[in-house]
Amino acid sequence: MIIMKKNKFTVVGVGYVGLPLAVSLSKFAKVIGFDVNKKRIQNLRKHIDDTNEFKSNYLKKVKDLNYSFKTTEIKDSDIFFITVPTPINKKKKPDLKNLIDATKIVSRNLKKGSIIVYESTVFPGCTEEICLPLIEKISNLKYNKDFYLAYSPERINPGKSKFKLKNTVKIVGSSNKKILRYLKKIYQNICLKVHPVIDIKTAEAAKIIENTQRDINIALINEFSIIFKKMNLDINKILEAANTKWNFIKFEPGLVGGHCIGVDPYYLTYKLEKMNYKPKMILAGRKINDNMSKYVAKKILNDLKLTKPKKKKILILGATFKENCSDLRNSKIFDTIKFLEKKGIKVYLFDPLVPIEELKSFKGNIVKKLDRKNFYDAAVISVKHEEFIKLGIKKIRQNIKNKGLIFDLKSTFPNNQTDWHL
Amino acid sequence: MIIMKKNKFTVVGVGYVGLPLAVSLSKFAKVIGFDVNKKRIQNLRKHIDDTNEFKSNYLKKVKDLNYSFKTTEIKDSDIFFITVPTPINKKKKPDLKNLIDATKIVSRNLKKGSIIVYESTVFPGCTEEICLPLIEKISNLKYNKDFYLAYSPERINPGKSKFKLKNTVKIVGSSNKKILRYLKKIYQNICLKVHPVIDIKTAEAAKIIENTQRDINIALINEFSIIFKKMNLDINKILEAANTKWNFIKFEPGLVGGHCIGVDPYYLTYKLEKMNYKPKMILAGRKINDNMSKYVAKKILNDLKLTKPKKKKILILGATFKENCSDLRNSKIFDTIKFLEKKGIKVYLFDPLVPIEELKSFKGNIVKKLDRKNFYDAAVISVKHEEFIKLGIKKIRQNIKNKGLIFDLKSTFPNNQTDWHL
Repeated sequence: MIIMKKNKFTVVGVGYVGLPLAVSLSKFAKVIGFDVNKKRIQNLRKHIDDTNEFKSNYLKKVKDLNYSFKTTEIKDSDIFFITVPTPINKKKKPDLKNLIDATKIVSRNLKKGSIIVYESTVFPGCTEEICLPLIEKISNLKYNKDFYLAYSPERINPGKSKFKLKNTVKIVGSSNKKILRYLKKIYQNICLKVHPVIDIKTAEAAKIIENTQRDINIALINEFSIIFKKMNLDINKILEAANTKWNFIKFEPGLVGGHCIGVDPYYLTYKLEKMNYKPKMILAGRKINDNMSKYVAKKILNDLKLTKPKKKKILILGATFKENCSDLRNSKIFDTIKFLEKKGIKVYLFDPLVPIEELKSFKGNIVKKLDRKNFYDAAVISVKHEEFIKLGIKKIRQNIKNKGLIFDLKSTFPNNQTDWHL
Repeated sequence: MIIMKKNKFTVVGVGYVGLPLAVSLSKFAKVIGFDVNKKRIQNLRKHIDDTNEFKSNYLKKVKDLNYSFKTTEIKDSDIFFITVPTPINKKKKPDLKNLIDATKIVSRNLKKGSIIVYESTVFPGCTEEICLPLIEKISNLKYNKDFYLAYSPERINPGKSKFKLKNTVKIVGSSNKKILRYLKKIYQNICLKVHPVIDIKTAEAAKIIENTQRDINIALINEFSIIFKKMNLDINKILEAANTKWNFIKFEPGLVGGHCIGVDPYYLTYKLEKMNYKPKMILAGRKINDNMSKYVAKKILNDLKLTKPKKKKILILGATFKENCSDLRNSKIFDTIKFLEKKGIKVYLFDPLVPIEELKSFKGNIVKKLDRKNFYDAAVISVKHEEFIKLGIKKIRQNIKNKGLIFDLKSTFPNNQTDWHL
């Protein structure tokens, strides 16, 4: 197998993960960026990327990448890269709908000799135990004879990040050695280095432990934050001191949301529960992190208890799950907001990084500009947007009533300028 | 206050922590290295250091450091550094006996204007809540008027380590700003940098979270090890792949023993339980790590079950809690050994790094040399001593019966050369 410009690759799901992949692959193959989201495809055809990973001018220059929502156009692809989101449902179980839908679409359009590479985060075994039987059934083709599978976990870091596809290592596992070598060649063209692993399950497992490790480390720091508040100690001063040790690992307390860290561990625990193993560390971490939104809400209510909460107006600065991006997926501040609203508090939401239309599912008041004087009873700064730092604490404080409180969850400002931090 | 050669400093407890400190301080003050362990003092007077931190020739050259077990000789000290061990008891609660005994001895010999600096690991609040009342009562002196307190956590890394006192940062917290500045000057002479903190409790807290963080990170990897064995996946291959991510943190599965990582978290949980807070992450980590010795023993028994365990002979390679040192403190392999012996297995212990006399509390067979052919039913390599690597797997295998199994807990050898690893 030789990589040739006439090769046809399809990337299924052109979001945060799929678009950068499709753009990179288009340098040496004809690429179809396929998505069931018509609006996304229409925008991409106009070179508009809502995820803000690419500027319009950049996308305009990309050749050999066509966008489509029509399944007929993906036929005859040599490789299908599946990069659809794999979220969790309300019961915190894997929601595989996108993955299964994508698999069905690909299966119906599979030709002999094709390769399907999954990049979506899944639990170990998912590719071969859930997707494979489906592909064989629908396509009527034989695994490792008529078609091949591989798994190569995405390591996309949305927003401002120095780690992008081209300077990170890519893990690849496949059921077939020849295919593994072929995919290695392909990925070598678009990323820093390829790390081939022995099988698909090992690649799936490697991905799932990366974010699980981050999750439990943040959970530990969150537990420290809760503990040291009870002892009247300042966690920031303690962390600063501990960070002077050569092997201390720097993490900060905070709400853990997003599409990865707060989600991936549940994929692993789901699989483990199916195997009748109750994970101790992983679930303990999830429990603490999931509880932080409520912990914050309770703290706010507690500190505002002087008069009735019903009459209080609270300004929330920051809607996204992390700083300096517009990404709202699984953002935990909405859990805090819900809790506050239940108590009758009027919540006002301000996030200069998020387009207003994306906030339309939020039923409260959306604030476009901070120009009210002595209006809010309290403010909650939930993420460390650079925009907030530029705005300055004075400007924020002007909007708050005299003696109003500022809860600065992520210590965006020096701790003596606000009233509480995690 | 000026640091002068005529200053008299006493270091209480000259073990792993106290001896390097006493040696360093003797460069600019007259130092007494005090210990209640007569044998240790007698040895040090002969320039013999059982902890192997210093060679005899080096100790011979040290001036202005005198060793003593007589409490009268510590009178009139300007500063007392308390560096005694703070272990846990059988119920996993802090065993403060050494700390309290040291405090009493110092209190009885305290002069006006002296400083007591604690370096032993304790829970936040221990210095001021437990030690301080004792000092005031015994000495009849007033805190922050007649005497001062400080806390500066030790970060000694026993054995072969590039991190020693002189190239690490030292945290210092004190109840008095002048004393803090004075101690900063002193420590600056012997370590890389001083990091002063706002109070004693912050310094205590910073120390306790360092090892707690390591403990839960190893616990997570141990949980991964258990999980992936159930899935028939090789954790080493998964970790190798995950380690290619820029922010994955490298840890290995293993038994967690020693005087720090397996002990310090219990100091924190003790304090938290007193405050009616049940720590979730920290105890989950301890539970997993404490259970690993039994998990290993069960695995060994399981794999040897073909005939009766009573007739089996198992060779254990490595008695220490970590590689390349002679430190037996809280070494968890002894829990595995106990479990095996209860089942009637004959255990043979081999550790070329530990002097035979230090193993005398071990009731089983001590092996001085590996020179038996086809003798043992199985071998367990519990730590990654370089000596074992030099010996080579062939030599080890010769001692084992044909079809005998080698359990290589820490993957000291390539996984295909042994039968099982964590």
